[in-house]
This record gives sequence, structure tokens and C-alpha cells, in this order.
Amino acid sequence: MEMLDVYRRLRTRPEGKIVLIVFDGLGGLPRQPGGPTELQAAVTPNLDALAAEGMCGLLDNVAAGLTPGSGPAHLGLFGYDPLEFDIGRGLLAALGIGFPIEPGDLAARINFCTIDPNTGFVADRRAGRIPNEKNEELVALLAKVSIPGCEVFVRTVKEHRACVVFRAPDLYDDIDDTDPQTVNKQPPLPVVATAPASERAAGLVAEFVRQAEAILSEQHPANGLLLRGFARYEKLPLLTETYDLRCAAIASYPMYKGVARLVGMDVLDDAGDTLEDEFACLERHFADYDFFFLHVKKTDSYGEDGNWDAKVHVIEEGDALLPRALALDPAVLAVTADHSTPCVLKVHSWHPVPVAIRGRWVRPDDVSVFSERACACGGLGRMRGIHLMPILAAHALALEKYGA
Amino acid sequence: MEMLDVYRRLRTRPEGKIVLIVFDGLGGLPRQPGGPTELQAAVTPNLDALAAEGMCGLLDNVAAGLTPGSGPAHLGLFGYDPLEFDIGRGLLAALGIGFPIEPGDLAARINFCTIDPNTGFVADRRAGRIPNEKNEELVALLAKVSIPGCEVFVRTVKEHRACVVFRAPDLYDDIDDTDPQTVNKQPPLPVVATAPASERAAGLVAEFVRQAEAILSEQHPANGLLLRGFARYEKLPLLTETYDLRCAAIASYPMYKGVARLVGMDVLDDAGDTLEDEFACLERHFADYDFFFLHVKKTDSYGEDGNWDAKVHVIEEGDALLPRALALDPAVLAVTADHSTPCVLKVHSWHPVPVAIRGRWVRPDDVSVFSERACACGGLGRMRGIHLMPILAAHALALEKYGA
Repeated sequence: MEMLDVYRRLRTRPEGKIVLIVFDGLGGLPRQPGGPTELQAAVTPNLDALAAEGMCGLLDNVAAGLTPGSGPAHLGLFGYDPLEFDIGRGLLAALGIGFPIEPGDLAARINFCTIDPNTGFVADRRAGRIPNEKNEELVALLAKVSIPGCEVFVRTVKEHRACVVFRAPDLYDDIDDTDPQTVNKQPPLPVVATAPASERAAGLVAEFVRQAEAILSEQHPANGLLLRGFARYEKLPLLTETYDLRCAAIASYPMYKGVARLVGMDVLDDAGDTLEDEFACLERHFADYDFFFLHVKKTDSYGEDGNWDAKVHVIEEGDALLPRALALDPAVLAVTADHSTPCVLKVHSWHPVPVAIRGRWVRPDDVSVFSERACACGGLGRMRGIHLMPILAAHALALEKYGA
Repeated sequence: MEMLDVYRRLRTRPEGKIVLIVFDGLGGLPRQPGGPTELQAAVTPNLDALAAEGMCGLLDNVAAGLTPGSGPAHLGLFGYDPLEFDIGRGLLAALGIGFPIEPGDLAARINFCTIDPNTGFVADRRAGRIPNEKNEELVALLAKVSIPGCEVFVRTVKEHRACVVFRAPDLYDDIDDTDPQTVNKQPPLPVVATAPASERAAGLVAEFVRQAEAILSEQHPANGLLLRGFARYEKLPLLTETYDLRCAAIASYPMYKGVARLVGMDVLDDAGDTLEDEFACLERHFADYDFFFLHVKKTDSYGEDGNWDAKVHVIEEGDALLPRALALDPAVLAVTADHSTPCVLKVHSWHPVPVAIRGRWVRPDDVSVFSERACACGGLGRMRGIHLMPILAAHALALEKYGA
């Protein structure tokens, strides 16, 4: 928080535009000893030229050794310490489906579950992974819940998962999960506040659970619900206030739009669905903003599928589009990732991600290839992702001198 | 502060001398794409040998992306976090002219200004940049100010700029600038404390302003004054107490002498004016101290002038003198900079600075050239400048083991 105040004090209008391109889950691992990573395997003449002209390094977007979730990783890239600004899972679920969250909202994840009608115990914590259609049906039924003085929003996520947002004054989130994490041994846990300030919220949540259980009782197999990850949305200091930058997000997935909105970016609604659409969107709006976050989703999706060829292809697709961003002549252009998603692991990993920054005031280093390995010897060194934003701002001359 | 306590707990007598040579504003940028920086352009066989025998890296003396002022940058090099020990502008102005500041002093910058006698509005915030002689005349007149229970020192800085130091108990610095930052629209702002603890100081400052305005009223064009950058001097923990090192500063400019004095160094008064004088001073006093800070000013001055050849020449001059310091056989010798001042920018910049450390217990790396680019691949990596002092002390065996 303190550093954000320092930047705010030093902020000034940039001399040009900043473009930050984030390939989600870009970082990878070799498939066999001595082999290339996905990024090394991809043919990327434009990214390599960027590395050669620019300055490279490796970023730990949460902290060394920590595997970032998508929310914390992006917060880190936007300059917010994810260890300080802990966005709870309930909130991330709400953001992930594009729910327009407001400061003070209390969010939680819902699992529809199966309750044994004889014992009252949780028999299946996921209700047999009901299809999305069934989930939507249940969510529609839950619209009948009515709590005086509190708005309640229930939304489908996927299969057995949904989320709920409570909107009322003074809702705090020190509330235990109601998921007993066991099967056929206990009923759902009662809603318990673990701090006095959260007792009011726990009372409202308990009333929600009471009504919801009554509504669901005749359903099958999802005749109950479990709540997890209570999280209040405390307004973040806005990126647009920390820097003197008008910021826009170009992303096609709700989660990234949501995180961008949290930090005060305008989320452009004409980003389209394809990567080419996103670059076209950047071109259309280039005059309107100072800072652009352009998000490439599919590197991560294919990494999680373990689909090596498809991940390599998306990297090459992004490489081929890069000249369109460069042709706009931004003052600073950076390419990086939120985290690694190596195809051999099929999940997010802790490996740091490569970054390359190009701009008139960049001091070039010896790196001439954009890869995890080459960037390790870059002029940026290995640093926490939270340092990227001030470095980008500095290179756009958007930060004044610290002290005299 | 916490880390300083750790060093203090572990401090022990060094096995030899430490010499820290700081080339002010050394870091640079290429003049054209693919070209060398100033340091790369300079012919520096001795610095290159130092890099080859030693260990190199890059330092961010305030923080990544932040452009350091001279005061904060040197504090960082001396091991004080400049984000924690924020030395205000008023203090830096007083240090810059060599005023012997004492703990508890309240300092502020003065701008002599022109007041429109009809409206009372500020007509020229710099009083037409009066010559130094006129400034000295006005400062002499202000010696008549008399405030019971408070010593007041007014000193010339340059042109329209002066500084004032108040010495009395309990003077705190939460006081707004009186500079309205506008012309022909308002009179100077009243002296306002922004925290109760500073009300006493604000009262004294207001009395100073009242008397000063009366004294200046008949002057032309400087018939008024504006105060900015109120800063109280809180005593820093001393370098000589954090480490078991007798420390000396060899510098020719007041600002650097001032900062060195703040952290408890003896400022040698026979440093002379030239770089060669400074090395001779080092030779004369080598037996008397454990730690020497030797400051090379002109790399920065020529960087700010955009005078490429002169900056390159000063680097080469320093390189040629380096063997004289090495001949003294210090246990540890380090060469670095406080910040970058690229000739192409003509101002301080945020780019990290190269550092090379030579000593018997240094573990060499692959770097064999002293340049920004080569040092990026050094064994020190890229780190905050505050880590340099403990590393220098460690290499002189002046820090014991932490824990058992």
C-alpha cells in the first residue's frame, strides 16, 4: 500500500501509450530432459526481435516458489501485492462469471450437494456433478429467497458450482465454510462467524441457507447446498488513481475482465472472441487510453489440457499479431504472462514467467530470444511481478523523481 | 530499521578497509539503437579488470522503476531504505549548501518572489531569478528576524532560492507550502499546520514570514517569499553504530558531504576539488578509517548537460585513478553509482546502476566488462541498493554469523 502511495505522489502524464500483453499460462517446461519449453518450441520471430531490441527478465507474480491463481497473478502484474490484497475465492467466483461486484458485497461459492434425507448427513459434496442446465434450474428456484434489508444474488457457475453475493451494509467475511469436507458423517456445518464484526453477516447467511434448504429439499440429487470462501469486496486503490493513466482492458474471459474492473480499468466491450479480434480492438481504441492490458487466454487453457501443439500454436498466433501492436507505436510495449502452465503438469505452476519490454528509453540487454531460459540473463533480472507496473510507467516517463 | 538492528547485533571489526567509489549519475543509455552507453563507450581497462576479478550486479537504489534523487540514492547506498527514511526537500536544500543541520531542526526551502503591491498577489514566483549577489543581500537583511525561543538561520542557495532552518524544541513538519503555485491570482498562502503536533512550529514559521515580509517589502523585485518542503531532521541511526566501522567521506559537493554527515561519517575537509585530489585524500587518510565513501560528481553534471564526450572522459579519468585505490590494498573495493543520468535524457533516470566488488573473499562471476549490460548477468543479480552495505561489510568479515 505504501509503495502505491509513493507512485501516486510521483505520477505524471505519460509521454505515450503503454501496452501490456499477457499470455495466460505462457511459461512451460521441457517435455523431456534437454528439450525445449512450449515457448522455445514455438517459432516466434517477432517476440525474439522484441527481446533483442528490449530488456528482459523473469517475474514471480506472487512470490518465489508460489503458484499463482489467475486473480492474484493479474493483481501482481497490475502492481498490487497479492499477498496484501487477498481477493477471496468467493469474490473470484463472482468475478469469474462477470457478476458486477460492488464494494462491500459479500460473496461465497456454493456447491450444490446431496443430503441423505434419513440422517441429514452430506452424502455427495458435488451432487453427482449435475449438468449446467440443472444448476440453472436450481438457481432460478433460489431467486425466491427473500431476506429483508439484504439483496441476494445467486448465479450459476458450472456443474454443481454456483456463487452467491449478499449486498447490505456492514457485511464482513469472518465466516467459516459450511462444507464439512466429509461424506456420510455429518450434516452441513452451521453458519458461524469467527469475529464479532461478522455476526450480522452470518445471521443473514444462515437465513439464506434456511430458505435455500427448504426450497431445494424436494430436488434430486441436489437437495442441499454448501457455502465456502466467504469474501467481502474491499475497494482496491485504483490503478487509474495510482498512476496518471487512463487504463483499458481487452479480454474475452469474465475473470480477467473482473479483475481489470476491480483495479479501475475500463473493460472494452468490443474485445471479440479471437486473438485477432483483441488486436483489432486495441487498434480501434488506441487513441482513447494511455494503458492497455491485452489478455491472451488460450495458452493457459491448452496448457491445462496438456495440449502441447495447440499451446505452441497460440504462442505463434500471438507472435504473428504482435507487429500490429508495434505498428501503433506505443511508448512502451511489454509481453509477459500471469503464471506458467506447463503442458507436462497440466496445472498452473510456480515457475517464473519471462518478460520483455520495448520502448525508446529501454536500456537493451544481451537477450535476443524470448524464452524462459534466455530471459534469465536479462537486464531486469528476476523480480516480483509487482515491480513491472512502476517500470512500465517509468519508461513512459510517467513517474517523477523520488526526492531531490 | 529492523535489518539495521540485525547488522548491529552481528557487527564486528573488519579485517581490512572498505572503499566505496560512487560515480554520480554513471548509468547511461545508448545514443542510437544498438549503440553503446556512456560507460560502454569509455575505455576503462581498470574497471573492466575489477569486474573480471570481482563480482558484479545491478542496483536499484530506491526501488525498481523509481528515479532517485541524490539524497535518497546515497541513503540507499549507505544501507538506509530511502522509502523509510524520507529526507524532505527542505533538509536536502540545507544539506546541499553544507548547513550543519542538527537533530530536531526544521528546514524549508525559500523562493524569493515578487508580490504585486496593489493586489498582494504573487506576481512572479521566482522574482525574475535574481542574481546570487542580490540573494545574499536579502539573506543578510533577514538576519534581523528575531523570534524569542527559536534560532532562525537563513542561507542563500542560488538565484531566487534560499533555505531557512528553525531550531527550537518540538518543531514538527506537517506544514503546508505557502507557495500558491499560481501567478496573479492569490497572495502567498498562510502557514498552516496539517497536524496538531506541528501547530507550534507553524506559529513560529508564521512569525518568521510576518517579519520577513516586512523587511522585504521595500525591495525590488524580490519583495516577498514563499516557503516549501518543510522537513524536520530526525536523527538517523548512524552507520558507525550499525557497523563497527569508522567511516569517512571524500566528496567535494556540499550535498554529498551533508548526507554522509547525516549517517555519521567524518567528512574529510581536505578532499580538494579534483578527482585526483580525492584519490590523494584517500591515500593520506587510509590508515585512519575502516570505510571510505569517495564521490565522483562530474559524471552526473555532464550527464545533465547532455555532454557525452565529457561524461565519457570523467569515467576514463576515474578509471585511470582506480589503481591508486587498489594499490592501498583495501579488503574490499566497490565501484557503483547513485543513479543513472543518461546524456540522452539529461536528467536522473530510473535505470539500475552497475556495481562491481573486488576483494579476497569475493566469489567471481562470468562478468569481465564493467558496463550496465554486462553487469546484468553478474553474481549479485539485480538488487535494491540497501543490500550493498551489508555485502561490503560481509566481504570485510565485519559481520558475524546469524544464528547458530
